[in-house]
Amino acid sequence: MAESSNSDMNGEKRTLKIRRLEISDKRKGFMELLGQLTVIGQVTDEEFDRRFEEISSYGDDHLICVIEEEASGRIAATGSVMIEKKFLRNCGKVGHIEDVVVDSGFRGKQLGKRVVEFLTDHCRSMGCYKVILDCSVEKKVFYEKCGLINKGIQMSKYFD
Amino acid sequence: MAESSNSDMNGEKRTLKIRRLEISDKRKGFMELLGQLTVIGQVTDEEFDRRFEEISSYGDDHLICVIEEEASGRIAATGSVMIEKKFLRNCGKVGHIEDVVVDSGFRGKQLGKRVVEFLTDHCRSMGCYKVILDCSVEKKVFYEKCGLINKGIQMSKYFD
Repeated sequence: MAESSNSDMNGEKRTLKIRRLEISDKRKGFMELLGQLTVIGQVTDEEFDRRFEEISSYGDDHLICVIEEEASGRIAATGSVMIEKKFLRNCGKVGHIEDVVVDSGFRGKQLGKRVVEFLTDHCRSMGCYKVILDCSVEKKVFYEKCGLINKGIQMSKYFD
Repeated sequence: MAESSNSDMNGEKRTLKIRRLEISDKRKGFMELLGQLTVIGQVTDEEFDRRFEEISSYGDDHLICVIEEEASGRIAATGSVMIEKKFLRNCGKVGHIEDVVVDSGFRGKQLGKRVVEFLTDHCRSMGCYKVILDCSVEKKVFYEKCGLINKGIQMSKYFD
């Protein structure tokens, strides 16, 4: 668990800890934070808990991290990584980073970078040979600051 | 299992079946086929079998398909898809297509398209709301023919 302190505009200390997602984070604004990224829909507590258990069953192969502001107990940022097991590259592994988002009230504090570094460090420790992610062209400079480079394009197909 | 017949240059019928990867496919040129995509390294039978079991333990959440030429027992094409479970979009799921490759001796038979459609159909049947993949700009037109559209860019970081 890593800590950092930031001073907000009132000069107060705000401690921001990065850690794995916990099942109680639904009450701390985790879904609302994802809602700043895309549509979240209506997820009941039961559905959340079931999905949490499904993801947890993958252990270190699917990690979701959050940054919590300790004073308020609010989730300020999140990101996830799923580790893919391949046959190529000596049965290598690849980390797929997804759903990185920082709460609009916490921007400008390098929390996005902390999330990406946390997920990247996890992949390195898991023996991945690379980590990849997809983003819009507008986010390219941010991810370059995180040490990633543009390698190709993303294609997608939405189902009805 | 889906079948198709192609006539080769000698007019012979070559039946090409698409199915899930089987552990015996290492002997049918599966690794050499991946070697047409990228570095495969040195993978022993034991390492292959262990990785096969690891991937198989994910069941329908990580599917690798192959197209086998029945007459020769050679693997002509392959592709994989890993299904990611999310909280957003009503606890939605996303299929990540990876490592699509057609043997150089089997190009021009639409096998790549069959692989992508097989993996895409799997994702749809698993309840995914979308399927995504990364590729080089040169492959964009091919994937557009498979029904995908360009949505963004891929960023990556290789570890030493």
